Amino acid sequence: NQINKSVHKYKITEKYFSFAVSPAAERLRHILGEDDSTPTPTIFTEMDTLQHEGGELEWKESARWVKFEEKVEEGGERWSKPHVSTLTLHSLFELRTCLQTGSILLDLEGYSLPQIVDEIVDRHIADGLLAPDLKEKISYVLLRKHRHQTKKPIHRSLADIGKSSNAASSLFTDQTQSRSMNDISDTPSTDQLKNKFMKKIPRDAEASNVLIGEVDFLEKPFVSFVRLSQATTLGGLTEVPVPTRFLFILLGPPGKTKSYNEIGRAIATLMVDDLFSDVAYKARDRDDLIAGVDEFLDEVIVLPPGEWDPKIRIEPPKKVPSAEMRKSVLNLNELGQMNGSAGGAAGGEDEDLPAQHELGEELKFTGRFCGGLWLDIKRKLPWYCSDIYDGFHIQSISAVLFIYLGCITNAITFGGLLGDATDNYQGVMESFLGTALAGTVFCLFGGQPLIILSSTGPILIFEKLLYEFSKNNSIDYMELRLWIGLHACFQCFVLVLSDASYIIKYMTRFTEEGFSSLISFIFISDAIKKMVALKYYPINRGFKPDYITSYKCECIAPDQGESFNLTDMDWTQLSKKECEKYGGALVGNACKYVPDLALMSFILFFGTYSMTVSLKKFKFSRYFPTKLRSLISDFAIIISILIFCGLDCLLELETPKLHVPTEIKPTRSDRGWLVMPFGKNPWWWYVASFIPALLVTILIFMDQQISAVIVNRKENKLKKGCGYHLDLFWVGILMAVCSFMGLPWYVAATVISIAHIDSLKMESETSAPGEQPQFLGVREQRLTGILVFVLTGLSVFLAPILQYIPMPVLYGVFLYMGVASLSGIQFWERIKLYLMPLKHQPDFSFLRHVPLRRVHLFTLVQIVCLAVLWILKSTFLAIIFPVMVSVLHCFTFYSSCTLFYSILFYSILFYSILFYSILFYLRFKKNVLTITLALRNKNIPSVKTSCCKNHKGTERIFSNYN
Amino acid sequence: NQINKSVHKYKITEKYFSFAVSPAAERLRHILGEDDSTPTPTIFTEMDTLQHEGGELEWKESARWVKFEEKVEEGGERWSKPHVSTLTLHSLFELRTCLQTGSILLDLEGYSLPQIVDEIVDRHIADGLLAPDLKEKISYVLLRKHRHQTKKPIHRSLADIGKSSNAASSLFTDQTQSRSMNDISDTPSTDQLKNKFMKKIPRDAEASNVLIGEVDFLEKPFVSFVRLSQATTLGGLTEVPVPTRFLFILLGPPGKTKSYNEIGRAIATLMVDDLFSDVAYKARDRDDLIAGVDEFLDEVIVLPPGEWDPKIRIEPPKKVPSAEMRKSVLNLNELGQMNGSAGGAAGGEDEDLPAQHELGEELKFTGRFCGGLWLDIKRKLPWYCSDIYDGFHIQSISAVLFIYLGCITNAITFGGLLGDATDNYQGVMESFLGTALAGTVFCLFGGQPLIILSSTGPILIFEKLLYEFSKNNSIDYMELRLWIGLHACFQCFVLVLSDASYIIKYMTRFTEEGFSSLISFIFISDAIKKMVALKYYPINRGFKPDYITSYKCECIAPDQGESFNLTDMDWTQLSKKECEKYGGALVGNACKYVPDLALMSFILFFGTYSMTVSLKKFKFSRYFPTKLRSLISDFAIIISILIFCGLDCLLELETPKLHVPTEIKPTRSDRGWLVMPFGKNPWWWYVASFIPALLVTILIFMDQQISAVIVNRKENKLKKGCGYHLDLFWVGILMAVCSFMGLPWYVAATVISIAHIDSLKMESETSAPGEQPQFLGVREQRLTGILVFVLTGLSVFLAPILQYIPMPVLYGVFLYMGVASLSGIQFWERIKLYLMPLKHQPDFSFLRHVPLRRVHLFTLVQIVCLAVLWILKSTFLAIIFPVMVSVLHCFTFYSSCTLFYSILFYSILFYSILFYSILFYLRFKKNVLTITLALRNKNIPSVKTSCCKNHKGTERIFSNYN
Repeated sequence: NQINKSVHKYKITEKYFSFAVSPAAERLRHILGEDDSTPTPTIFTEMDTLQHEGGELEWKESARWVKFEEKVEEGGERWSKPHVSTLTLHSLFELRTCLQTGSILLDLEGYSLPQIVDEIVDRHIADGLLAPDLKEKISYVLLRKHRHQTKKPIHRSLADIGKSSNAASSLFTDQTQSRSMNDISDTPSTDQLKNKFMKKIPRDAEASNVLIGEVDFLEKPFVSFVRLSQATTLGGLTEVPVPTRFLFILLGPPGKTKSYNEIGRAIATLMVDDLFSDVAYKARDRDDLIAGVDEFLDEVIVLPPGEWDPKIRIEPPKKVPSAEMRKSVLNLNELGQMNGSAGGAAGGEDEDLPAQHELGEELKFTGRFCGGLWLDIKRKLPWYCSDIYDGFHIQSISAVLFIYLGCITNAITFGGLLGDATDNYQGVMESFLGTALAGTVFCLFGGQPLIILSSTGPILIFEKLLYEFSKNNSIDYMELRLWIGLHACFQCFVLVLSDASYIIKYMTRFTEEGFSSLISFIFISDAIKKMVALKYYPINRGFKPDYITSYKCECIAPDQGESFNLTDMDWTQLSKKECEKYGGALVGNACKYVPDLALMSFILFFGTYSMTVSLKKFKFSRYFPTKLRSLISDFAIIISILIFCGLDCLLELETPKLHVPTEIKPTRSDRGWLVMPFGKNPWWWYVASFIPALLVTILIFMDQQISAVIVNRKENKLKKGCGYHLDLFWVGILMAVCSFMGLPWYVAATVISIAHIDSLKMESETSAPGEQPQFLGVREQRLTGILVFVLTGLSVFLAPILQYIPMPVLYGVFLYMGVASLSGIQFWERIKLYLMPLKHQPDFSFLRHVPLRRVHLFTLVQIVCLAVLWILKSTFLAIIFPVMVSVLHCFTFYSSCTLFYSILFYSILFYSILFYSILFYLRFKKNVLTITLALRNKNIPSVKTSCCKNHKGTERIFSNYN
Repeated sequence: NQINKSVHKYKITEKYFSFAVSPAAERLRHILGEDDSTPTPTIFTEMDTLQHEGGELEWKESARWVKFEEKVEEGGERWSKPHVSTLTLHSLFELRTCLQTGSILLDLEGYSLPQIVDEIVDRHIADGLLAPDLKEKISYVLLRKHRHQTKKPIHRSLADIGKSSNAASSLFTDQTQSRSMNDISDTPSTDQLKNKFMKKIPRDAEASNVLIGEVDFLEKPFVSFVRLSQATTLGGLTEVPVPTRFLFILLGPPGKTKSYNEIGRAIATLMVDDLFSDVAYKARDRDDLIAGVDEFLDEVIVLPPGEWDPKIRIEPPKKVPSAEMRKSVLNLNELGQMNGSAGGAAGGEDEDLPAQHELGEELKFTGRFCGGLWLDIKRKLPWYCSDIYDGFHIQSISAVLFIYLGCITNAITFGGLLGDATDNYQGVMESFLGTALAGTVFCLFGGQPLIILSSTGPILIFEKLLYEFSKNNSIDYMELRLWIGLHACFQCFVLVLSDASYIIKYMTRFTEEGFSSLISFIFISDAIKKMVALKYYPINRGFKPDYITSYKCECIAPDQGESFNLTDMDWTQLSKKECEKYGGALVGNACKYVPDLALMSFILFFGTYSMTVSLKKFKFSRYFPTKLRSLISDFAIIISILIFCGLDCLLELETPKLHVPTEIKPTRSDRGWLVMPFGKNPWWWYVASFIPALLVTILIFMDQQISAVIVNRKENKLKKGCGYHLDLFWVGILMAVCSFMGLPWYVAATVISIAHIDSLKMESETSAPGEQPQFLGVREQRLTGILVFVLTGLSVFLAPILQYIPMPVLYGVFLYMGVASLSGIQFWERIKLYLMPLKHQPDFSFLRHVPLRRVHLFTLVQIVCLAVLWILKSTFLAIIFPVMVSVLHCFTFYSSCTLFYSILFYSILFYSILFYSILFYLRFKKNVLTITLALRNKNIPSVKTSCCKNHKGTERIFSNYN
């Protein structure tokens, strides 16, 4: 057979293992190098085979290629799934022979099929390849009508079923195939125009038609390869109205159908190959084409027959080598070692490796006054219009609703805690207004509008300490706070003006991962803690349905009827609260229990979480069309919330609901909406507040910028650039504004920002069948953010609607947010590795290049750091963390930055330690223990901290492949 | 380069597309045909490359092959996952050249490496391929020590981490690689012997060593292929103590490492190829080897470079073409068309197509008296011993517990219903004893011990009608029932003796699928219905925690104090039941509510179900070693039951529990354990009961045999044969015994039997790394069945333990059983197709061969049939179904079986219609409506019916590819 013969003839040349550029490659380089200016069109290939149908000859479509092969299932009358064309070496060699012996007509002037067929046959006769008396027969065969496999919409096929059930005989008639009788006409038929497959083919595509058939009058094959000088629509030749550029005809003597089909598949596969199609467009003669085949053979991937079943259809891979890379390889003409050992060199391509964020450009130290801020503005301004109109998309609605619910839940929780901590100087109302104001301003003018501002844990603790301090020392809290805010604002400006944010550039994976994992864990644990805190609905465990008669709870009048009017009351008619109010005693074994609510809350909490998870996963199921599925997946959270709110309404149980304030007025009646800067405290406090302000600045700087780094990760493929300096600038201004209005301070919230980004992710619409959708980036715009915060502000008026939402449902959403934000973190993947036996571990790039025990060690160090942080966070030391983070950061930083910043940071460190000492001194005067315990019971919601220990050895390993 | 040159030299021969057998194939046929008696050993290939490590030369293992390739990850110092070796065409051609030019030493007498190396080098020098002065250098290089990549157990690597953290420097030392310094010694080193990889290699395996290196003193490559006459252990050459048979050495001038490695991978892949390894063992000279390479090239599968990234490691396929098939193909030398169009012809191989059960052998009509029964006994007897000792396996424990819980739940449910229907003539106690007795006897002596006997719906309805009939006509129920049982037993014997079971052979997929789906649906709907029936724990929806004081329930004495002692009682101290008993009135708004129990039941029900499902799926997760995972998956149901029983205990709520009777005595005190046949009814009833017995016989016959067919499905790969006649024989005997003892009648229960089989499935332990585990069959034995029923009998004594199991947990298990038994049914897969868009449909074999609309039509007809059956089942017509099934079955049957059976069946039909008419006449005298309603409310648990409409057109299509 072919190979044996071809190889047998091979004579050993002098040059062993010649890697000199082959003649084929040389030839190709010559052709392809000629004019790279005009890119060649995409080719759509259709293969038709000659069939005898009811005594008639006709051409029936049997396969098609856009990028991957789809074949017509013989019995199923349907298109197969797109798959990689697996060929035999045989058929490729035979194809090569065909091209060597058949007639090649390049740049034929063709306007209709009969004329083209005429020319082809004439050429054959002229070349002596065909007896002249066969001309008629060949032309007759080639001009038979073409039948295409067209895809029907499902409602039509269902209608068919109805029809078929009416008349059983109609079952056996063909209804899914359209026949194009009008080969001669030049205008596309209606069937062609109606074909929905057209939208899978790029606009500028041209067709290549492969016609394969077996006829009894031939004794040797009739092979022809035609390139038309102009792409022409040849009637019903092609399934879709795409003009034909190439024709490959193979008619042969009977008995070898399979072999002919394989040759047809081989040329079709070649035609859709990026490199060969270029060659086919630019070939000057037969030898160029042959060189193209040789080059293709050279690059081919071979599977051993004993390890692979040729019947298996190979799913298209996630990505294929680009044509450009292959063309560039042409010059070197040496393939990389296979099976991925080259993966190391090309590590940047590995998707499963969240590469270190590329901060170089944006975080360069300009050294000029305001340089960074100016660059940020210059970078963001041109996008401002698109920042608005990019928001008009259905996905935005889902994102807005999702983030809105997250924001108001957060606002209510923090508002409540703040109210507790400051005797309602700042309460739920202030939290709502502040969130709305700060968020809207930041999303309108901030550098990275995808960041969502929110109150955070450290700020909460700071406020608590500050309030206690001022109460104990009889200082006016609001005024002191205003001055701290003003100082912090000023310090932020200093940081902005001096480009201080550039030190974020030195943050390592270790720090960033630790930070985001910690916050995710805090989110998860908070959601669960809040559910457990619903214990105030205790279940009566010993309840026996039979003894229902013995369960009661009665209000008994207090023994001494001191007050005059109490004795007159009917005590049994009082409700629990009234009874307590009037000093009555609640007596009975049912008093301390609340039935059903605890279990119902659990069902709502866990139900919301698991339904959200499964609806999100639904995107990858097989059911329903892709659009519907991605819609369901996008709206997963809203759908789950609605369903479980519905369930809650249905059962009519009094589960804890979301209650938002309905009137705009300060929570505490003795304060107004504006805080006056002077008058209440001695003058020297205006200056001294500089020192606590330093601490706030550090808190804000670290929180804000680490969150921004996480948002700007390279994996998110953000295109509009980031604005660290601009962000900090606005946070500073908002700081001052909020201080003046007595509203809480706001800073970037990591988990909600990640959720925001996740809900705005875009994927490419697939073009060629079988191609995997690619993650394109995030819908970067300001609209969703603005809407979220405007809605938050309007929530005061939405109270009647919002009161139907049970809190457990929202905690379920919180849990989902926490878990979802964990899933993107490599640290988490590495933790999972501990539980996997070696052979089941996924093929992560870092596992190929770093020994497992070193990966485990690195993970272990991270876990220990996190555990220590977690333990510390649970104590009153929580507030010191951002400082710790910055201190630890300094070690890495020290070696590589200017003296100025080192001094700045060490002075900040010094002052904050000083401030802490004073605070602690003051606190130790009181009973330390009670405070500690009180703080511990408060469930501090999201203390944001991290650890950036400079573990040099391990760090280096992990940055090697970034 | 290679290919271009080889192909350029190719001259067009006269014979276009020659499919004559090639010289290579001819040669191979000659070699391989010589002595096929001794199978060649499996080959393990190890590839070592020459490395410069610290100034020293050494051979380092870089890849190995058992069947698939595993390579050493360069940085990771670990084995990659097994993958298909993807080669370049290039390297294969280069290998071919190497074999043509290098020295080939076949059947070399070798006993140690130095001696073999000597011989090789001498031969090279003799052939003039090597300058004599290089002998020393070559030998020196070839005798360098070998370093292997050995796999460490995980606890050792964790220990390493500990070590490494102690001393940071040790991080960088190599600890996972063993060096074998003793190349010269003949005994395997300890490292070799300790290597756990050995168990992945078959016992008789021989090694082939591929040594690839680059040395600077050579100017052209040094290639050698050696086959030893005897496989010899060559010291530390190989990673495992496997004797070496083949050696391939390639040393070349520097600069082309990648190319050499690729050649090494090519020869290694060839060596593990079934066909080539045969050739290598039997080759007589160089040309035979080359012919082997050519044949390999001929069969090779080619992936186009533009559609596949060579860096992707291809996972080993589920199955590969067998060597035998490939050898047989050698003669034809034509590959089937690729991409699976050949799948149609070889349809029998398709795993996703549950092929029609192969009943041919076992259900042949012998025509002899008792012929079928005799054959059954002859078939089953030799397995009897293995039926016992095959049961000793850990999996059995799980199966026993699972099925036991299913059985007792069923026994309790049916017992309760039967007690209701027969005024406790048969109650829970009888149900337990009957299940234990019938099950044990059947599992001990039955033909198919995997079948689980149970009460079924039709029998329940029959008993109900019979009891009503006898009560209305003053006939003794137990005596009448005894005679019906005796007649039915006799009729069963007639069916057994005359081989009547053979008609089951004509059952189609349509009938079988309809039957099993219907029963699965009934299981699912019953589980849910039972949960909904827990409504007798109503939730107080309007409960306001604040108004707890107003909720109470008091027992008030009846108005007229008629009874003398009631007025003295403290009515408020009475429990609910006592209150009702003494005629008190329950007053209060809490009376009709029961808190928490309904929600808790829901949590237990749904929790058990979803935990079972996820634990079952856990088998396919990546975590934990395979053994642990399959253990967890096997015990999924038990684990979930235990966890949710624990949760229930923890909350101490009074959920409905499983209560089994604790004393062995008949439920009704006026009946004994033995029913007397004579004395209570007029004599003619003894004869007349023949007619209702006919109905029972049909019920039992259809139920038993359809279940048996489902159990014996080809997909289950049962090896010990089935025994339809023997089964029916024992069911008949048990019928009589149960009638005598006044116990319920038993027949095969489809869903529980399927669950039994599912819990006993075996999978092969993987041998070569990367090979997929195969489903081997079911652990066929009698032990689990016997144990289940013995345990059921003993449950009376286990009551103290069983009372901790809440019913909702068991209903969850029921739901799981129903859903799990659906999953194996093609009908269900086809229903799912309705919801899938065309392009997402899985690649089922029938979709390749049958047009989608016809598949949909077929499914639709099945759905309609099922829906009709379901609706009818919900009415009192339920009992008529088995008869309907048999009637419909007759249509198919009529055309193809003997007159005798037609007459038999029509007479049965006639008599049963007669019987029904009488029954209906009697019933219409009473109020029909009340009975109907009563029956409907009874939630008949598992009426087994089916539909076997002779839908010829569609049926034909679906049997085509079976």
